[in-house]
Amino acid sequence: MKIHVLLSPLNADEIYFTGKTTVVIDILRATSTIVSALDNGAKEIIPVNTVEFAMKVSGTSFGGQTLLAGERNALKIDGFAMGNSPLEFKPEIINGKSIILYTTNGSKAIVKAKFSENLFIGSFNNLFAIVEHLKNLGEDAVIVCSGMSGMFCMEDSVCAGMMLDEIRKTTPDLELTDSGKACLVLYENVKDDLLAMIKKTEHGRILEEKGFAEDLEHCSKVGISDLVPVYSTGVIKPFVKEEI
Amino acid sequence: MKIHVLLSPLNADEIYFTGKTTVVIDILRATSTIVSALDNGAKEIIPVNTVEFAMKVSGTSFGGQTLLAGERNALKIDGFAMGNSPLEFKPEIINGKSIILYTTNGSKAIVKAKFSENLFIGSFNNLFAIVEHLKNLGEDAVIVCSGMSGMFCMEDSVCAGMMLDEIRKTTPDLELTDSGKACLVLYENVKDDLLAMIKKTEHGRILEEKGFAEDLEHCSKVGISDLVPVYSTGVIKPFVKEEI
Repeated sequence: MKIHVLLSPLNADEIYFTGKTTVVIDILRATSTIVSALDNGAKEIIPVNTVEFAMKVSGTSFGGQTLLAGERNALKIDGFAMGNSPLEFKPEIINGKSIILYTTNGSKAIVKAKFSENLFIGSFNNLFAIVEHLKNLGEDAVIVCSGMSGMFCMEDSVCAGMMLDEIRKTTPDLELTDSGKACLVLYENVKDDLLAMIKKTEHGRILEEKGFAEDLEHCSKVGISDLVPVYSTGVIKPFVKEEI
Repeated sequence: MKIHVLLSPLNADEIYFTGKTTVVIDILRATSTIVSALDNGAKEIIPVNTVEFAMKVSGTSFGGQTLLAGERNALKIDGFAMGNSPLEFKPEIINGKSIILYTTNGSKAIVKAKFSENLFIGSFNNLFAIVEHLKNLGEDAVIVCSGMSGMFCMEDSVCAGMMLDEIRKTTPDLELTDSGKACLVLYENVKDDLLAMIKKTEHGRILEEKGFAEDLEHCSKVGISDLVPVYSTGVIKPFVKEEI
C-alpha cells in the first residue's frame, strides 16, 4: 500500500486525480465543518469553487431546501445563511438540508479532486474512521492538504502525518513518498498537544484574532465522529456500508 | 526580518516574486551544479525553462562560447554537451564558457522567479555564503524549494531549514511562516547525517540507481563554496562585492 501526500492542491492538476483514492483535509475549517454538518443531520454538502456558482446552485436546484454556507477571509459572505464554523451547524438549523459550501481552500480542493475514483473528507474529528476505511479498502491513496491560498499549512500536514502514523501501525509495508515522511516527522513533533500546535499556525492565529478560538478547540479533537463523508457526482454524503 | 518558504514552485505564480529577495534551491542537482560550474570558471549560466529555448539561445547568442547542459529524467539530453552532474563541470571543459542549463526542476524554478528584485542560487555547497549574504542584506526573503515535478522533496526543504537555522542564530526576531517552521523541524530531524538523508529521498534513490551516487555525496557537502550566484536579466554570475 502506497500513500502520497500533496502538501498543496496546487501540486497537481485535476487530471492527476483520475482513478485515485483521495482524502482531502482542511482542518481550519472546511473538512471539520463538513463532518460536523453531516453528523448533525444535514442531508448533503455541495462543495463549490466559486461564490458565483454557489449562488447559481442555490437558486436553481434542490427544491429550496438549501442553505448557503462559507467564508471569505474567514468571515461569512454577504447574503449567505451561514459561515464556515463547525459550531454553527446545529441540528435545529441544518436537519435535512442540502448545504452549498464555498470556502477559500477546502471546498476548492475537493472540487479539484472530483475525478477521483473514491473521494473522502478527512479531519482530526473523523480521523480514526477515515483510517479504518482506507485500511479496509487497501488501495493506494493520496492525501490532499488544502493548505492556505495555495501555500503549505502546518495543521493539514500534521493531520496527514497522524493518519499515516495510524495506518502504518497495522500496515508494515506502507510505502511513503518524501512528503508523507515529512508529515510523519511534523506530527511526531507536536503529537502531545494538537491544540497548542493549531493555535501557533498562521491560520489558527488569524481565526483566533477574528473570534473563532472555540473553532480551534473543536477542530483539534481527534476521533469524535465515526463518519466517512464521501464525494460523488457533486455531493458529499456519509458513507453507507451497503455501498461496498 | 521575515522569511517565507515555498515548498514547491507551483505554490505561487511569476508575479508573486516581483520585488522580492529570493533564493532558489535545487539540491539534486541544478543549484549544486550552478555553484560548481561558476566555482570552476564558467563565465555565466543561462537557465532556461524549455529544451527548445535552450537550443535557440545556443544557436544565436554568446558568440559560440556556449555549452548546452542539462537533463531529462536525470540523464543528459541528446545533442547537449553536458548533463546535470556537478562533477562534470571541470575547469578544463567550462573555463570562460556561457553554460545554457535546462533541468526538470531547478532551472525552471529560477526562470519562474525572474521578477525578483534579488535572485540568488542556494545549495548545501554554498549555504554559509548565502546565509551571510541574506543577513547582510537584512531584507525579508522567500526561499523556493524546486521540488520534484511540482511536488515536495525532502532535500530542498531540509536545506531551507538549515539556512533558517543559521540565520536565526544571529537574528532573534526572525519571523517564519508555517512552511519555514516545518523546514526547521525537518532539518533538526536529519542534521547529523545529511548524506544519509539525501540517499533516502525519492530523488536521491533515482539518481543512485542511474549511477550518480557520487553526485549525492558532493551535493550533501555543506559550505565548500563561498560563491553567491546572482541571477540578473537572464544570466547567473557570481556576486561581486563592489556591486553593493
